[in-house]
Amino acid sequence: MNNLPDFKAWAAAGQGRIEATLQHVLPSPQIAPQRLHQAMRYAVLGGGKRVRPLLAFAAGELSQADPERVALAGAAVEIIHAYSLVHDDLPCMDDDVLRRGKPTCHVEYDEATALLVGDALQSLAFQVMTDHKLCDDAAVQLEMTRLLAMASGSRGMAGGQAIDLASVGKELTVPELEFMHIHKTGAIIRAAALLGFKCGTPMDEQDQAQVDKFAKLIGLAFQVVDDVLDVDASTADLGKTAGKDAQHGKPTYVSALGVVRARELAEELRLAAMQALDGFGERALRLRQLADFIVLRKS
Amino acid sequence: MNNLPDFKAWAAAGQGRIEATLQHVLPSPQIAPQRLHQAMRYAVLGGGKRVRPLLAFAAGELSQADPERVALAGAAVEIIHAYSLVHDDLPCMDDDVLRRGKPTCHVEYDEATALLVGDALQSLAFQVMTDHKLCDDAAVQLEMTRLLAMASGSRGMAGGQAIDLASVGKELTVPELEFMHIHKTGAIIRAAALLGFKCGTPMDEQDQAQVDKFAKLIGLAFQVVDDVLDVDASTADLGKTAGKDAQHGKPTYVSALGVVRARELAEELRLAAMQALDGFGERALRLRQLADFIVLRKS
Repeated sequence: MNNLPDFKAWAAAGQGRIEATLQHVLPSPQIAPQRLHQAMRYAVLGGGKRVRPLLAFAAGELSQADPERVALAGAAVEIIHAYSLVHDDLPCMDDDVLRRGKPTCHVEYDEATALLVGDALQSLAFQVMTDHKLCDDAAVQLEMTRLLAMASGSRGMAGGQAIDLASVGKELTVPELEFMHIHKTGAIIRAAALLGFKCGTPMDEQDQAQVDKFAKLIGLAFQVVDDVLDVDASTADLGKTAGKDAQHGKPTYVSALGVVRARELAEELRLAAMQALDGFGERALRLRQLADFIVLRKS
Repeated sequence: MNNLPDFKAWAAAGQGRIEATLQHVLPSPQIAPQRLHQAMRYAVLGGGKRVRPLLAFAAGELSQADPERVALAGAAVEIIHAYSLVHDDLPCMDDDVLRRGKPTCHVEYDEATALLVGDALQSLAFQVMTDHKLCDDAAVQLEMTRLLAMASGSRGMAGGQAIDLASVGKELTVPELEFMHIHKTGAIIRAAALLGFKCGTPMDEQDQAQVDKFAKLIGLAFQVVDDVLDVDASTADLGKTAGKDAQHGKPTYVSALGVVRARELAEELRLAAMQALDGFGERALRLRQLADFIVLRKS
């Protein structure tokens, strides 16, 4: 954390860049169907820490990627994330009314609109992946698009949601929790890092495997910290309903391990993630700072 | 219709090929999360006329496309179509219980699963578009993937759904109806024809514009016929609830024009679509037969 002021400025610049990119790629609220476009913008803009795009930027620094290209790939990932939140909050899923300090999409609009917002956002993410040049080789860009599709689908995020649903009211072991989170949140976090990395100069398989390992570990750490914050932090700090995991009977790292051991696990995962970056030297500065940011955050 | 037996065999072969491709690209029900994968297969396999993939095959004959490649592109389009049906049938949308003669996905499984089935199917469609070589040039394949994303999103199918929702209980003029259907069903039908065409040898812009024109007209004809059948046919013939448009207060070509004039309009659109194919000669045989099939069908 010794570079924190510098990291804060870097993160703020990245957040500003991603916000501008999202503004640009989201359809104008003046274009028909206006209400759907307004609701899509409501669901995506002006909220969130943009951790996934920041991971893409930081991983892009390893491969000298053009930040303009990384911003588009990062925006696509963030749009997938935003759609998943809109659908997660629906009455048939978590039935939540508060997200990022605002009414959830179906509360602000209506359920049918929120359903279509999520659907249209997913399409938009793949449009963004294919609309502009994200790297020099079209075949690599196709592979990147495939990576995002895999991470979003039934063997990635959507599959993780299904496992999550099936686990309500059950006690899961730590390996079972890990399996769920590697799908539910981990797949998209890994995709963010890999896509940022692949926007740049092609690197060898070994480097890519290390980026993937880092992202996998930090994705798990992110989830463990989320579970700890859900019991520790207030609704006002989180901008979403606190304590809802326990309320919904959802198994968490806290319910499986207790809050003290869960905090230790987050720290162990952070250290293991750092190790995966050893070969990159100073180029991995932002990834290391992000790892600290993710594990040491308070909301 | 003088080639009908031949057409029937051609269509049956195409339907068999697309069914096999769908079987292959859908995740095995043995792979976790099993229930989600079962439900995805339930929603996609063993039903439907597969009109969109057939359009892709027929358009692919104009550009000597490899049918194996067209089958993958056609499967991606059909998967988008299937996901849209699952979400359309949800209680917050049309709240329908019958589809293709079977209980709808949320009735057979549950609402949350049906939501995730639709989400995961959309991801799968883009995975299929990027998993295999669909044409010789990766840049063209990226453009094809973009085309499907545009056709699915807020300015295509999902946008059409939003317009449809907003129109319930209103009287729409024929131009307003056309605007809705060009989005809701037309965009994906056009994508099917264009993707099939683009799997083959690159053709000039003019030819592509004619294919697009054909697909746009036949897509509208398809919808007009759908509206006529909704009042004419029985639930058993349709495999979905008949008469539901009127019941839901939905504006249709029949409510706007009356059934006699709507039938005439379908025929006019068919003839205009045929004209768009004039330059292609015998290569467009299957597209012509499909146009007949779409307009003259009884269910």
